[in-house]
Amino acid sequence: MTPSDSIETVIEQFAALPTIGRKTARRLAFHLLRQSEATVEAFAKSLVRMRAEVRECDVCKTFTDRERCGICSSEKRDRSIICVVEEPGDVLAIERTNEYRGLYHVLHGALNPLDGIGPEEIRIKDLVARLDGSVQEIILALNPNVEGEVTTQYIARLVAPLGIRSTRIARGVPIGADLEFADDATLARALEGRTTI
Amino acid sequence: MTPSDSIETVIEQFAALPTIGRKTARRLAFHLLRQSEATVEAFAKSLVRMRAEVRECDVCKTFTDRERCGICSSEKRDRSIICVVEEPGDVLAIERTNEYRGLYHVLHGALNPLDGIGPEEIRIKDLVARLDGSVQEIILALNPNVEGEVTTQYIARLVAPLGIRSTRIARGVPIGADLEFADDATLARALEGRTTI
Repeated sequence: MTPSDSIETVIEQFAALPTIGRKTARRLAFHLLRQSEATVEAFAKSLVRMRAEVRECDVCKTFTDRERCGICSSEKRDRSIICVVEEPGDVLAIERTNEYRGLYHVLHGALNPLDGIGPEEIRIKDLVARLDGSVQEIILALNPNVEGEVTTQYIARLVAPLGIRSTRIARGVPIGADLEFADDATLARALEGRTTI
Repeated sequence: MTPSDSIETVIEQFAALPTIGRKTARRLAFHLLRQSEATVEAFAKSLVRMRAEVRECDVCKTFTDRERCGICSSEKRDRSIICVVEEPGDVLAIERTNEYRGLYHVLHGALNPLDGIGPEEIRIKDLVARLDGSVQEIILALNPNVEGEVTTQYIARLVAPLGIRSTRIARGVPIGADLEFADDATLARALEGRTTI
């Protein structure tokens, strides 16, 4: 029994978000009830504003509030290389490394035939359309799971006839992890991908 | 670098909520960007509506959308006993046990002299005002920490001259827990509070 329908509605909406269970949802609702009406209204407004303003970049399909995102419109990026990722959040993750100066392409998903997600459901056509003569390498940085693997193989095969080099990011033991606790599949990939010192 | 100021604002607002770190905040913002505008608008509206509609019950101070909450206005509750808790969420937790049929009183906090939270800052006066001849017992169900303990002692001393019985909920090993991993303080309380079988 929740004390009010309007609290119950908010709890259900919070609980529908990823990583938030019913207990946390209840805590968040009660937290907002302790904030000023102005604070809650500002939060609500930002959500609506974000959803209304943000769109996909015309080129790389990442989230942006302009026609073309900051990376695609930057003069400083290397246009001969495109890093393909599944989600806009992956772009931020790679940018944080400060190791990459090329462009991106966001697929908004990965191939998953069991869930009916084929090449038409993700932004693969848009990627192929970008592959004019200037692109020399595609780095596939998809999630290290079955869907990511299927998508990686699919795209690599697709671009092979175009004479573009396909690479993939290394799979191995994560930095800071304990070798003893690494799973078999990760260790197998780490051995397979060993490099000369 | 976040791709849009409006996303950054939402991430910051999510991260200001309890239990949500920056990583989860980012994930929630991106999740909402994948929902329809109508869904996001409905979520925003519910937040504002909840904050506008919900108030404290005139009697027990829990959150409700009426002058008097469902429990305080129910004919079926035992009016001779009041369970004192820190937060509205604690009322829900105790209600879920289906073991309690009395009334509640929500303090909206606990005494914490270091943080400047004295008796005037929480709803202690309102509790005392409820103690007419009909109340025979007060159950103190505050959090098992220093603040809860101080508040428990304070209220017990306050109501003693009124001839009202003060009780507290048992402190001991939680059901399902492993005795081996219980902390010393909990075990000490469990021993102290042992009952005859």
